[in-house]
Amino acid sequence: MFAIHDFLKSARDGALAVVAALLFAASAQAQSDALPSWNDTAPKAAIVAFVEKVTAENTPDFVPEAERIAVFDNDGTLWTEHPMYVQLAFALDRVKTMASEHPEWKDTQPFKAVLDNDMKALAAVGEKGLIELLMATHSGMTSDEFQKIASDWIATARDPKFKKPYTELVYQPMLELLGYLRANGFKTFIVSGGGVEFMRPWSEQVYGVPPEQVIGSSIKTQFEMRDDVPTLFRLPQVNFIDDKTGKPVGINQHIGRRPIAAFGNSDGDLEMLQWTTMGGTTPRFGLIVHHTDADREYAYDRQSAIGRLDKALDAAAVNQWTVVDMKTDWKRIFPGK
Amino acid sequence: MFAIHDFLKSARDGALAVVAALLFAASAQAQSDALPSWNDTAPKAAIVAFVEKVTAENTPDFVPEAERIAVFDNDGTLWTEHPMYVQLAFALDRVKTMASEHPEWKDTQPFKAVLDNDMKALAAVGEKGLIELLMATHSGMTSDEFQKIASDWIATARDPKFKKPYTELVYQPMLELLGYLRANGFKTFIVSGGGVEFMRPWSEQVYGVPPEQVIGSSIKTQFEMRDDVPTLFRLPQVNFIDDKTGKPVGINQHIGRRPIAAFGNSDGDLEMLQWTTMGGTTPRFGLIVHHTDADREYAYDRQSAIGRLDKALDAAAVNQWTVVDMKTDWKRIFPGK
Repeated sequence: MFAIHDFLKSARDGALAVVAALLFAASAQAQSDALPSWNDTAPKAAIVAFVEKVTAENTPDFVPEAERIAVFDNDGTLWTEHPMYVQLAFALDRVKTMASEHPEWKDTQPFKAVLDNDMKALAAVGEKGLIELLMATHSGMTSDEFQKIASDWIATARDPKFKKPYTELVYQPMLELLGYLRANGFKTFIVSGGGVEFMRPWSEQVYGVPPEQVIGSSIKTQFEMRDDVPTLFRLPQVNFIDDKTGKPVGINQHIGRRPIAAFGNSDGDLEMLQWTTMGGTTPRFGLIVHHTDADREYAYDRQSAIGRLDKALDAAAVNQWTVVDMKTDWKRIFPGK
Repeated sequence: MFAIHDFLKSARDGALAVVAALLFAASAQAQSDALPSWNDTAPKAAIVAFVEKVTAENTPDFVPEAERIAVFDNDGTLWTEHPMYVQLAFALDRVKTMASEHPEWKDTQPFKAVLDNDMKALAAVGEKGLIELLMATHSGMTSDEFQKIASDWIATARDPKFKKPYTELVYQPMLELLGYLRANGFKTFIVSGGGVEFMRPWSEQVYGVPPEQVIGSSIKTQFEMRDDVPTLFRLPQVNFIDDKTGKPVGINQHIGRRPIAAFGNSDGDLEMLQWTTMGGTTPRFGLIVHHTDADREYAYDRQSAIGRLDKALDAAAVNQWTVVDMKTDWKRIFPGK
C-alpha cells in the first residue's frame, strides 16, 4: 500500500515537474516572440518593461489580474483611418445602395454630394450634414438587421488604396500587442469614436476582442414587441459620442474601473490617455501611434482633418507617453506583409 | 538517451493520467454538489438540464462558450429588496449624514420627511421627490469619491429586520447558481435598475461579478482636468434607467450579444426575459424568483409596491419560464443559515 502510494506520488511529482518545466519553456518562448513585428527600439522595450513590472508578484508595482485593463482606440490605432474613416465609407456606400428607395436624395444635400461622388461638396456638409448621413444609413432598422448589414458590407468592401478588405488593414504590431497583453492577464477593450454596433460584428474575429469589450458611439434604441417578437429598433437620435472627453466617460460607464494602459493615435484619445495614466497609484502606460510612414501606409499628424495628432503629441512629451514612429519602430504594418 | 527519454515520457504520461483523473474527479464532484442549497424540485432539474444541453458538444443545442451569456437582476433576485431597496436606504442615510451641511432641508420636502423619519410623508413624495433625493445624495462629487462613500456605507449599514450587513442578505442558492454557470463557461452579468456605481464597489467580492459585467442605471458624468488631475464629476442628471424596456436596451449597449439565460423576480425584468428567451435560435432559459417565504424572508407578488410580480408571472406561464417558489425550492435562503 505505502509502496504503491509512494510510487504514484513520486511519479506524479516527477511528472508534474516535467510538465511545469515544459509549460515554463513554452511560456518563455511565447514571451520572447510575442512582438515579432516590432523593431528592437524604445517602444517595444517600454511595453515589455511595463508588462514585466506589473506582473512581477511580490513587488510594489504588481497589479492583480482583475485590474489589468487595457484600452485601445480603433481608427488609426488598430486599423487604417485614411483616406476616410471606414465607417464613413460604409455610410457613403449605404447611401448609394439605398438611393433607389429615396428618389428625393438626388436633389437634396448631403445625399446629392454622395450620389454625385462630389467630394468637394461632401467636405462642405459639416457636422450637421454628416450626422444626417449617419442617421439615414444607421437607423430605421432593428439591431439584428443592422448587424447583418454591417457584417455583409465589411465582408465585401475594399479599401481604395490597398484594394484589400478593411479587416486586413489592421496593424500587425498592434495585433501582437493585444495578444501579448492578454497572454499576461490583461483584459483588452476597444474604446472608439466609431459606432459600437458597426465594430462588434467583426471585433472578435479580427482583434480577439468580444462584443462586450467594445465601447463606442451609439444611437438610441427602443425595445418593442413586434408580432410577439422582442425587437430593438434603431432610432435616428444620437445616444452617446465616445470621443475626446466622452472616452473616459464611456470607460467609466462600461468598465467601472480605471485602465492601467491606454493606446491611441489622435487628439480624440487625449482624455482617455490622461484618465488612464494620471493620478493612479499603480504603474500606468500610455502609447501613441504616430503615422510617419507615407510609403507603407500614411504620414499625418498636426494638420490632418482625420486623426489629427497635435495636443496629444505635446501631452505625450510632458507625460512620458511612448510615441511609436511607424516607420522606424514597426517591421511590418499589415498582416502577411 | 532513449532510455531516459522513454522513462521521462512514460513517467509524464502516467502522471498526466493521474492528474487528469484527479481533475476529472474534482470536476464531477463540483458538478454534483454545485447547487446544494436547492431542493431536488423542478427548478433545479430545469437549470441542470439546460446547462447540460448547451454544453453538450457535437449536438444541435451546443452553444459555444463565447455566447454563454447569463444576465441577473439584482434587487429581489440576488439579494433582499424589502422593506425597501438597499440603495434607497443608502440615500436616506446619506440625507441624514449630509443634513448639517444643508440646514434648509429640515423645512423642505422630500428631505424633511427623511429627517423626521416620516414614512407616510416619504411615501407621498412621488417619483419627482425620489429623484430629488437620489440626485442630492448621488451627485456633486467625483466617481472616485462616490465609490468610497458607497463602499464605506455598505461595510457598516445593517438591514432593519435581520440586523445584518446587506451583503450577507444575498441568496445562497443564487450564489451557487452564479458559480455553477461560470464553472460551465458562462459569463455572468448583473442587469439591475439600481445604480451601477452603487453596485460595482462590492459586486466582485459578493457575487464574483467584476465591475465591467455590472449594468445598471446611471447619472451623467463629466470629464474635467482639476489641478492637472483627470476627474469624472457626477452631475445631477439622469443618464439611463436600466429597468423594464431599459434592460434589453442596456444589455444591447453593454454586451452587444443576446443572452441565453435570464434571471429576475419582478415586472421590471419582463422585457429582459422576453429579449433573452423569445426569438433566438439556440436554447434559452428564463427564471423568476417568486418570494413566497414570509418566515425565512418575505412573501409578495402582484400587489407589492416594491418588486411587483404580476405581468411577468403571467408571462412565465405562457413562455415556460421556470418559477422558483422560495419556500419549496430553496433549502436555505442566506449564506450560513
